[in-house]
Amino acid sequence: MSNLTMLTDLYELTMMYGYLKHGMERRRAVFDMFYRQPPGGSSYSIMAGVEQLRDYILNLHFDEDDLAYLRSLKLFDEEFLEKLRNFRFTADIYAVPEGSIIFPGEPIVRVEGELFQVQLIETAMLNIVGHQTLIATKANRIVRAAQGGKVMEFGLRRAQGPDAGVYGARAAVVGGCTSTSNVLTGQMFGIPVSDTHAHSWVMSFESELEAFRAYARCFPDACMLLVDTFDTLRSGVPNAITVFRELRKRGHEPVGIRLDSGDLAYLSREARRMLDEAGFPNTVIVASNDLDEYLIRELITQGARIDLWGVGTKLITSADGPALGGVYKMSAIEENGALAPRMKRSDNPGKITLPGRKEVYRLYDEQGMAIADYITLADEAVDTSRELTIFDPNETWKRMTLTKFTAVPLLAPLFKDGQPVGENPTLAEINAHRTAQEKTFWDQYLRITNPHTFKVDLSDRLWQLRNDLLSRNEHES
Amino acid sequence: MSNLTMLTDLYELTMMYGYLKHGMERRRAVFDMFYRQPPGGSSYSIMAGVEQLRDYILNLHFDEDDLAYLRSLKLFDEEFLEKLRNFRFTADIYAVPEGSIIFPGEPIVRVEGELFQVQLIETAMLNIVGHQTLIATKANRIVRAAQGGKVMEFGLRRAQGPDAGVYGARAAVVGGCTSTSNVLTGQMFGIPVSDTHAHSWVMSFESELEAFRAYARCFPDACMLLVDTFDTLRSGVPNAITVFRELRKRGHEPVGIRLDSGDLAYLSREARRMLDEAGFPNTVIVASNDLDEYLIRELITQGARIDLWGVGTKLITSADGPALGGVYKMSAIEENGALAPRMKRSDNPGKITLPGRKEVYRLYDEQGMAIADYITLADEAVDTSRELTIFDPNETWKRMTLTKFTAVPLLAPLFKDGQPVGENPTLAEINAHRTAQEKTFWDQYLRITNPHTFKVDLSDRLWQLRNDLLSRNEHES
Repeated sequence: MSNLTMLTDLYELTMMYGYLKHGMERRRAVFDMFYRQPPGGSSYSIMAGVEQLRDYILNLHFDEDDLAYLRSLKLFDEEFLEKLRNFRFTADIYAVPEGSIIFPGEPIVRVEGELFQVQLIETAMLNIVGHQTLIATKANRIVRAAQGGKVMEFGLRRAQGPDAGVYGARAAVVGGCTSTSNVLTGQMFGIPVSDTHAHSWVMSFESELEAFRAYARCFPDACMLLVDTFDTLRSGVPNAITVFRELRKRGHEPVGIRLDSGDLAYLSREARRMLDEAGFPNTVIVASNDLDEYLIRELITQGARIDLWGVGTKLITSADGPALGGVYKMSAIEENGALAPRMKRSDNPGKITLPGRKEVYRLYDEQGMAIADYITLADEAVDTSRELTIFDPNETWKRMTLTKFTAVPLLAPLFKDGQPVGENPTLAEINAHRTAQEKTFWDQYLRITNPHTFKVDLSDRLWQLRNDLLSRNEHES
Repeated sequence: MSNLTMLTDLYELTMMYGYLKHGMERRRAVFDMFYRQPPGGSSYSIMAGVEQLRDYILNLHFDEDDLAYLRSLKLFDEEFLEKLRNFRFTADIYAVPEGSIIFPGEPIVRVEGELFQVQLIETAMLNIVGHQTLIATKANRIVRAAQGGKVMEFGLRRAQGPDAGVYGARAAVVGGCTSTSNVLTGQMFGIPVSDTHAHSWVMSFESELEAFRAYARCFPDACMLLVDTFDTLRSGVPNAITVFRELRKRGHEPVGIRLDSGDLAYLSREARRMLDEAGFPNTVIVASNDLDEYLIRELITQGARIDLWGVGTKLITSADGPALGGVYKMSAIEENGALAPRMKRSDNPGKITLPGRKEVYRLYDEQGMAIADYITLADEAVDTSRELTIFDPNETWKRMTLTKFTAVPLLAPLFKDGQPVGENPTLAEINAHRTAQEKTFWDQYLRITNPHTFKVDLSDRLWQLRNDLLSRNEHES
């Protein structure tokens, strides 16, 4: 689907109708997207989905079929439908660039413009950025667990629909995977595609040996054999070695084998030994079969001899946390010509939002290591020439004074007055950016289990504003 | 994306290339799709995705851009690309109809045709049918937990990409949900759309009361108010009642309120009491906020007064089991002009597949209640005029003799020689079919926790064939 304008919850449209009917549609409003909880046991996430968010915004328009459908709902009048027919997005969007390390509670997208417009994009933005950030994060954790071993994305068949497969594979590469098995993703985004063969290949032939020979004839320079169809060590690996020898006689070097079942630690060590003894120390061993960051770490600890990891289901669905929990909340709205801060109150402190138009800075020490993220009101400057005391917004006695530090804003303009700003970075640029960011974080923040919580603090003014609004008895007004 | 032909793992294409190079591309093969484990604690699944599978098959073709991309991979030759250019699907597909109750291990799709063609469709089929069956199943569990309360699908923003939102919402309706908040799904499939308003509506106004009044003015006959922006019982419900009274004076009846945070059991009882005392006993209370089948069951047990359930994240992602684990395995291939059975062996008995071209029958007792599913070879007849003894394929001493029973085949033709058979059933027909099937199952098989395992047995001949193939020393061949 190239036009996702109708990819929205109904209530965005009913609210837009209401704004129009009350003459509020052109009031300026500010919304923040943030997320509450990273997936699984992570402390951080990897931002992704900005390129598709940009495409979505650029394609925003209601066509006649859309208007006819909306008319059929008998909720809206012709004035509203005419307003949709002429819909043009003219707002500003600031987003954290793809590949950035981000933390819960901080604005990762800020949208400012006419209430009518900025309300519409809520659902699709949360869907696109939430999904891709989730998968990029899961991928990053898996890649970190592989400790330099390459991770190939293999999840298309288990993804939650075609888009989840296609954009999920792209997000996996944003998170650090080196290739995908998904041909359409390769075609759309120029990502390397890699894969082996299936059990059905072996089962199409009279014997495994014949199947391997046939594969080697077709792909003499890309010969990677799946060895577990019948019996990995008694049949698969010996047959592979036979074929590898034949291949070498014809002047080609084999690539390796894939293990897809059984005790991967044991089988990989034995297979490695057999391949080495047969004179194929440069072949690689690929493992697949329900892998995730925990199993990969365990296999490495057990001395598995695995060079490449093919990760499917648990990556492409982020199985231990299949949603990011992204939200999009109003933080300010025009009143009498000026922006008035807004927040959502809640009995649950985790659901209270941050009021006002805001910026997020990452603070670095003299060595260039990240110390904290620091959320301010947008009209505040962070003066790095002076001391700065930051404090935990909930446990305010936890304080830290910074002397020599730098502050880098995280949000970058993506749309200005409805026009796209700059170009999409390439995936290579996104990867370089992510790698550079990873180097500025101590490992304790990014490790896959029991990570330290990275500080996300509020400026004095923002903290004060939040408290002032919280102590107003809104429900009596 | 309307043409999903390139939505495939690379290995389908490399295997197709190999088949072509070995003159095997036109050999007849049979593949089964089945799944290994239902999501979460379920014993069953609800079949879904057949309509989209049909669309996918009907749109199968490689265009010039696709061929140019594949050429650029430097894996394939021109003969192969020419073969793709002329690709036409001419195979047969049999599928269990949408809305059917299905069980692990039994074929839910059977594909028969030229090896070249039936290999191509593996990945997309698993993606489409796997995803939608997963979500239909999760939805069905949630609907069963609601014990007659209606369940509205609210998950688009947390879905894993646009397709997961759109097709997931349709699958939720196949599973028993009554509406979706997703406008695009409503437009594409004629599904009722329903929704309320967001916190941002309330925050756009000076006060909650003013926001409620404004909403009531816009939607006097669809006035459903979200009451938890500031304080549910001290602000939200009293303000809603004020507005409901004003609405009634103008001749309109309010619809109800939505609770989205806090203790839903307590808040719903108190809100119900307040609404009843104010003279609005016919208003409904909608609850949302991270609901799933377990929480809904618990809320009902605690006496919550909730009429409608809005279920988002945990439904649309099937959060406690975000993949169905569907597989597609070769069961037979043409050898010397006849179909020869094939199976995948494995050290893990759960991964051994069933050989041969097969049928699945559901056996019913005299009262029309389901007794067991019974997998046979396709050329066997099930003679219901005689006694039939069925047995557990692993624990073969567990036997049961049926005297008066009926046998209904589960697989129905979807494509014959590449041509679609019949029309897609409507969603109303699918729902009627599902409801009828549910009535033939004792509750112990469908309950949400600790369900009984429904029998899926093999015919004597199929069981014997599997054992014969297992005892052949395939790895020595």
